[in-house]
Amino acid sequence: MPTEEGQGPLAKRTVEQLKKLEENLSARLHQVQAAGLKLDLTRGKPCAEQVALSDALDGFLAGKYTTESGQDVRNYGGLSGIPEARRLGSELMDLPADNVMVGGNSSLSLMFQSVQFALQKGLWGAGSAWRGEGQDTSKIRFLCPVPGYDRHFSICESLGIEMINIPLTDQGPDMQMAEALVKSDPSIKGIWCVPKFSNPTGCTYSDLTVERLANLANIASPDFLVMWDNAYAVHGVIEDEPLLNIFDLAVHAGTLQNLLVFASTSKITFAGSGVGFMGAETSVLKNFLSHLQYQTIGYDKVNQLRHALFLKNRLAEHMQSHAEIIRPKFVAVQSALDSGLAEDDVAKWTQPRGGYFISLDVPKGLATRIVSMAAKAGVILTPAGATFPYGKDPNDTNIRIAPTFPKLEEVESAMDILILCTRLASVQQLLLGKL
Amino acid sequence: MPTEEGQGPLAKRTVEQLKKLEENLSARLHQVQAAGLKLDLTRGKPCAEQVALSDALDGFLAGKYTTESGQDVRNYGGLSGIPEARRLGSELMDLPADNVMVGGNSSLSLMFQSVQFALQKGLWGAGSAWRGEGQDTSKIRFLCPVPGYDRHFSICESLGIEMINIPLTDQGPDMQMAEALVKSDPSIKGIWCVPKFSNPTGCTYSDLTVERLANLANIASPDFLVMWDNAYAVHGVIEDEPLLNIFDLAVHAGTLQNLLVFASTSKITFAGSGVGFMGAETSVLKNFLSHLQYQTIGYDKVNQLRHALFLKNRLAEHMQSHAEIIRPKFVAVQSALDSGLAEDDVAKWTQPRGGYFISLDVPKGLATRIVSMAAKAGVILTPAGATFPYGKDPNDTNIRIAPTFPKLEEVESAMDILILCTRLASVQQLLLGKL
Repeated sequence: MPTEEGQGPLAKRTVEQLKKLEENLSARLHQVQAAGLKLDLTRGKPCAEQVALSDALDGFLAGKYTTESGQDVRNYGGLSGIPEARRLGSELMDLPADNVMVGGNSSLSLMFQSVQFALQKGLWGAGSAWRGEGQDTSKIRFLCPVPGYDRHFSICESLGIEMINIPLTDQGPDMQMAEALVKSDPSIKGIWCVPKFSNPTGCTYSDLTVERLANLANIASPDFLVMWDNAYAVHGVIEDEPLLNIFDLAVHAGTLQNLLVFASTSKITFAGSGVGFMGAETSVLKNFLSHLQYQTIGYDKVNQLRHALFLKNRLAEHMQSHAEIIRPKFVAVQSALDSGLAEDDVAKWTQPRGGYFISLDVPKGLATRIVSMAAKAGVILTPAGATFPYGKDPNDTNIRIAPTFPKLEEVESAMDILILCTRLASVQQLLLGKL
Repeated sequence: MPTEEGQGPLAKRTVEQLKKLEENLSARLHQVQAAGLKLDLTRGKPCAEQVALSDALDGFLAGKYTTESGQDVRNYGGLSGIPEARRLGSELMDLPADNVMVGGNSSLSLMFQSVQFALQKGLWGAGSAWRGEGQDTSKIRFLCPVPGYDRHFSICESLGIEMINIPLTDQGPDMQMAEALVKSDPSIKGIWCVPKFSNPTGCTYSDLTVERLANLANIASPDFLVMWDNAYAVHGVIEDEPLLNIFDLAVHAGTLQNLLVFASTSKITFAGSGVGFMGAETSVLKNFLSHLQYQTIGYDKVNQLRHALFLKNRLAEHMQSHAEIIRPKFVAVQSALDSGLAEDDVAKWTQPRGGYFISLDVPKGLATRIVSMAAKAGVILTPAGATFPYGKDPNDTNIRIAPTFPKLEEVESAMDILILCTRLASVQQLLLGKL
């Protein structure tokens, strides 16, 4: 219909058509700016309806503060967590409860501490620190599949670990590159993985990828760590996706001492008031706890018991309720992208079946500009580059969309504006090249 | 009556009397050993009746998960804590709420992190780390009043900070020694303080001591830290004792940037499921949080709100209930020591008005032996030396008594055995000297 603007891929339109389109899009953007909206697609936060699914948590113990083995959870003691909670971790991470420790409200803290301990103290006994105390200034490196989770990268940055980008394909990290790198460089001591419904693309690692990751430590430095942050293990939204069990594969490959698995209830019950878990080979776990004991007497066992009882035998049903709440928002994002951007053929985006994010790749060099345009129009997005180490997206192309927290109408409005900004910036870039 | 054993101070008795006494005490010890008791005076844990005072905590929110300002505590966000909880910290630590951050369940973690940040990252801006990254192997030292809290000393040990013992008098740390040391040695960067009902002697620092501590940073290295662990701020048992407000004094002395104050609800509500607090000058607090943000998105705000509401306007009354439960145990310890050891004149002990501990000094060189004798007779005590850096009591003289957790009858039985072992070991030591 809008013949003056032309049709089909932007790249194939005439300068006149692009100019007309720019004019129309600019006019619409001005309208939107005038409306003074305040929308937020920033963080992977559950919405109020989601956290309300767990409102029964406070009071769930009904005055019974003892574990099945008779331990009083109100008192001190027990650095590795109560048995009930270790079993919940075992269920979430699909590994034996003996290999599980239960932390506080943050699995991120467990990740930080495990990297810090590996670096400064050693996870494999005396003398195993990546970088000893004092004069040792060894360069330590990590592989970072990109785009990825900003807080993983911040841990490395904070601890002075150099990060090497490797592409995250729709099968998981580029394993050929990963294998070549670790083989040639023993200063590479780890890789960050969000193996299921990955942050931010939503991809789930293929069987072959998981198998190669389980074997990676056999060709890497012997003190290599696979940081397996399975944050979205039970977070199917459209539908669940299978993920191979890396724990079993690591046993088979003889690399169990090189694997640390993480999970939490942050996106199951209350974000920030849940329970974090770590899974590891038992001697590694023991070494971790031997360093941790200087920092704390133990974690919140009342909250551990509360969570273990609340989620017992109803985890799947509970996650189904989450999916029902956020599914319309995921659908709305996809549908907006399909109808708003497909024809232009300038951007591509992922179609995750679960997790918390959708990843949008805009034309090279435009992500920062689009995020800034959207902000002026009232839509806050995760800063461009945030999904890359050091906050630097070398192509300035990736934008993370987090649709769970806002209301459905807000997601729709925000997506309209994001698409408008993406189109306008793309048209302007094309015109700049053509003029 | 027992004329064969003699009377009065052991040191004045004859060899014959001591031999007879040894015989009788040994016989009693054999009887006790045969009884196979299992008693524990080890840790400063509240007893079941004490933690039960807070049983209403779980469920106290009654479904209302919002702060007074409308924040949803079930979701992410807020590294420094919700306003209600900061005010609770303000009340406990007696300093402005703006100077308070709220942590997780462990003030020990906040202490560990603050020392680690001061050491590796700096609490006073760029370049202020005590020991920079990489090649800096500077020796860093801390003053440790002894006897003191083992977990403070473990933090230093874990972080490679050298500890210097200074005596803890009944007025607090020996300030003349502290001042002389910090003046002559800029590698001394901090001092550990439990200023009220100190662990383990129960002493409360005198006004003059607190004033001199508030001024200590003026003669010490400019990046000196007073670690003010006010763990027993509201823990009068026999009666409360006044403690000067070091925050106000530090403002006056211009040393507020050198002061970190800590408190927690661990011994108010549930040990291990409470809320920890840190108080500091605002820019120091900001720097602390800037390092902390790499480790966690935020602490458990649901538990913060629960605690703030539960303790609102009833902290004093609640602590009175605690005192009533443990007062008989404190009295029993004192009465056992008075009637069992006073006449012998070989040991001395503290008479705290509050807190969690009583400190017993046995004859030089006997603490380890007495703890071991008591263990064989069924009474577990904190390992001798635990109240000193590196677990080494140079005089092998100090034994920490923690009477809160066991039942009153158990405290009485355990004290009988501890006194029996102390007397027997003392008699044997005297005999060895005389024969």
